[in-house]
Amino acid sequence: MPSKKNNHILNCPITFALGIFGDKWSLLIVRDIMFRGRSTYGEFQDAGDGIATNILSDRLKRLETNGIITKQRDPDNGRKKLYQLTERGMALAPILLEMYNWSGKYDPHSGASKKILDGLKKDPKGLLEKIQSGKFKI
Amino acid sequence: MPSKKNNHILNCPITFALGIFGDKWSLLIVRDIMFRGRSTYGEFQDAGDGIATNILSDRLKRLETNGIITKQRDPDNGRKKLYQLTERGMALAPILLEMYNWSGKYDPHSGASKKILDGLKKDPKGLLEKIQSGKFKI
Repeated sequence: MPSKKNNHILNCPITFALGIFGDKWSLLIVRDIMFRGRSTYGEFQDAGDGIATNILSDRLKRLETNGIITKQRDPDNGRKKLYQLTERGMALAPILLEMYNWSGKYDPHSGASKKILDGLKKDPKGLLEKIQSGKFKI
Repeated sequence: MPSKKNNHILNCPITFALGIFGDKWSLLIVRDIMFRGRSTYGEFQDAGDGIATNILSDRLKRLETNGIITKQRDPDNGRKKLYQLTERGMALAPILLEMYNWSGKYDPHSGASKKILDGLKKDPKGLLEKIQSGKFKI
């Protein structure tokens, strides 16, 4: 049995998060739902990042298995599926916002919005609330 | 030429960050340097996450190429290399801390430290400063 002392190393919280998201495509799907109002397979495919269909299917399944997104039938079209973030999926917003902030600072070609960078600096809580209530799209 | 309107989509800051870190191992190396005071190839290998030597070499090179870490000769042992975070590498701390926080909340087996979770809640700026000055190890 691991000693309590080593518990934070064996069950490292950063390793746990990266075990789920240590992958570009998973977090880009989360971004598309969270910030861009996308919810269907076709919309994720058209997001402009060039995701391959087999990778998209695999990552959607993994995100669902890990309780980050749910898949539901579109009430307007029974053959269409809608993907939505769960509570724990929506709780990833601060991680994505910190990535946004970092890239805004260090990428010379960054398309970061000044409004968002300012919001992160001046009122990060307020910005987060707006995003999590779906009122703010990047 | 892309229109200004689409700039934030074509040069999405989250895509930029994930282009560098969309990989479990890169961020675990950053974690080891930032929070655990590790600085040598051998120390990264012994971190307990089971990284393969070829992956470790590759990720160290990629992190160096992307200006996240620097490699220097150990003044006490010329054959040994020491890896350190650059300013932009150290600026990844808020991303890792938000991952820590998220996992602390959603991983039932989390080894997250109460001290750090409390610090993140009550005084995130103070905690960040301590970590970035190297005074605080996770």
